[in-house]
Amino acid sequence: MSAPNDCAIPAAASSITLEALTRLLESVFLRNGTSAEVARVLAANCANAERDGAHSHGVFRIPGYVSTLNSGWVNGQAVPQVEDVASGFVRVDAGNGFAQPALAAARALLVEKARHAGIAVLAIRNSHHFAALWPDVEPFAEEGLVALSVVNSMTCVVPHGADRPLFGTNPIAFAAPRAGAAPIVFDLATSAIAHGDVQIAARKGEKLPPGMGVDSLGQPTQDPKAILEGGALLPFGGHKGSALSMMVELLAAALTGGNFSFEFDWSNHPGAKTPWTGQLLIVIDPSKAAGQSFAERSEELVRQMHGAGLKRLPGDRRHLQRARSLAQGIVLDEATLLQLRTLAGY
Amino acid sequence: MSAPNDCAIPAAASSITLEALTRLLESVFLRNGTSAEVARVLAANCANAERDGAHSHGVFRIPGYVSTLNSGWVNGQAVPQVEDVASGFVRVDAGNGFAQPALAAARALLVEKARHAGIAVLAIRNSHHFAALWPDVEPFAEEGLVALSVVNSMTCVVPHGADRPLFGTNPIAFAAPRAGAAPIVFDLATSAIAHGDVQIAARKGEKLPPGMGVDSLGQPTQDPKAILEGGALLPFGGHKGSALSMMVELLAAALTGGNFSFEFDWSNHPGAKTPWTGQLLIVIDPSKAAGQSFAERSEELVRQMHGAGLKRLPGDRRHLQRARSLAQGIVLDEATLLQLRTLAGY
Repeated sequence: MSAPNDCAIPAAASSITLEALTRLLESVFLRNGTSAEVARVLAANCANAERDGAHSHGVFRIPGYVSTLNSGWVNGQAVPQVEDVASGFVRVDAGNGFAQPALAAARALLVEKARHAGIAVLAIRNSHHFAALWPDVEPFAEEGLVALSVVNSMTCVVPHGADRPLFGTNPIAFAAPRAGAAPIVFDLATSAIAHGDVQIAARKGEKLPPGMGVDSLGQPTQDPKAILEGGALLPFGGHKGSALSMMVELLAAALTGGNFSFEFDWSNHPGAKTPWTGQLLIVIDPSKAAGQSFAERSEELVRQMHGAGLKRLPGDRRHLQRARSLAQGIVLDEATLLQLRTLAGY
Repeated sequence: MSAPNDCAIPAAASSITLEALTRLLESVFLRNGTSAEVARVLAANCANAERDGAHSHGVFRIPGYVSTLNSGWVNGQAVPQVEDVASGFVRVDAGNGFAQPALAAARALLVEKARHAGIAVLAIRNSHHFAALWPDVEPFAEEGLVALSVVNSMTCVVPHGADRPLFGTNPIAFAAPRAGAAPIVFDLATSAIAHGDVQIAARKGEKLPPGMGVDSLGQPTQDPKAILEGGALLPFGGHKGSALSMMVELLAAALTGGNFSFEFDWSNHPGAKTPWTGQLLIVIDPSKAAGQSFAERSEELVRQMHGAGLKRLPGDRRHLQRARSLAQGIVLDEATLLQLRTLAGY
């Protein structure tokens, strides 16, 4: 596949349009063995993260995607099997493929059920999630729905009160519509720090704040490399974050038919990077609620939060960066851009 | 109303059976103006908390219940109005009464919908919640369902990054069935500490750990009285706990038609103690999930958690105390018992 014209950026360029980056990433995925649909979904997801300044889930992830695809660990050609189980329950067998195409395949049915029943759940199993979680929930809020999602990952978090890692970083993402403004969206790892941020700190040679993790001997450390090389993360907020992480295991794995974070063995797939687990989404139609419109009410909450002195809402920084990226292009360093073009075979 | 025989405990006694405590509390509620149904529901709730050693939501709360009922702030005679909105959505107008009788009134319909649709939501508004949240979710897990509930309360928590309180303590409770064992249940305030625990520390003259709250000037304090007298709590886990607390406001108030934690004015009801807000419950039927039985899977997770060195699960301490209370009776100091008997008019 030859490069689309708008990808023909001179080597000196340091910015790229969202559309060009999306096409470039699509080429990377296609060249590394995914189907056209998988390439489309993952490229948009990853480019949107980079657009929003969510660097730990942006193009930083591409070498990992390539590595995991080439290892044979994940099936980039998988066709998700959508199962219509009940009036509020949809299941998808992702076929050992990525979770995002599974969500895309079930999305219309999920929304239809949520609008009819008032609430619906999507249980994705046999899936790999290597991206941020907020892109999975934000679009529901953009069409007036409330969405909550959880995904488990791979053993790297020591449960509070235990002495060995068991849970994944197990994020929780939530999105709610807001009148006259972008939705309220947050995405938080139930670990004290996201795994991607530890990787970025290790790459930059930076120390972490205290309380984030332990080394291979279970001792507290601020060295990201000590965490990555045999160490582990801690849950955020002590026993409370740990309880929420446990809940994510139960919802994303036990309730979907997916693997717990400790159940898969990727040792025979050198280069495998993606946790093979499950994902749960709950979507609620707030038009079924009593009283004033939900979006007006959420806007009132935001107004009051600002009134209490809050400068920045969760998601505000992403929206600011999004506007900047759309106006001025997405800034990438040249080495990264060159690497992506090489991976795309340009 | 005369005391039932099994409440005729000599003044020197320091323990009481669950049944006797429940009847005693029922008499307290009835004597303070509630309907028989409200008395039945609240007495069982409160006695069960005491049975489980959840002291901050046990009989410690009774003077608050009496005070709030006598202030005219809450309607102890309210009859909840259940609204069947959609195949997965039930609403209840609690009629300015307590949330627990509203849940009791809608419970059968909620379970029927969850079993049929796979998931259902109950949105309670115009309600007062003055109890622990785990008793609301645990019974669903005991009949094989997964349940999640949130309730907002009254302004006493400073959002992360703000400088004035806005959120309530806004707990999240979760329950899931487990094969051959009591359900997995947790109930966590999204504040760094539960309000009841601050009250208990103040009463005992104990200092709090650091990071729990601020005084009336917004300065960090370990003095529970400084928090209660014009100060405020902090969210647990920094910006993450704060985001979850915001989510609870959106789910428990905006999505139910209830008040946000900052929206009610109880200044004209001296003695009012109960937050007048809303509550949301989501119930999922895990028999709709793919793969092995959910309860077997959750038991496997528990087994692995113990294998990772975890000594105690959330809820274990309650269950231990429950067994002790059922075998040996519930231990109450004589002054408390006397106070309860006086409030009951014995």
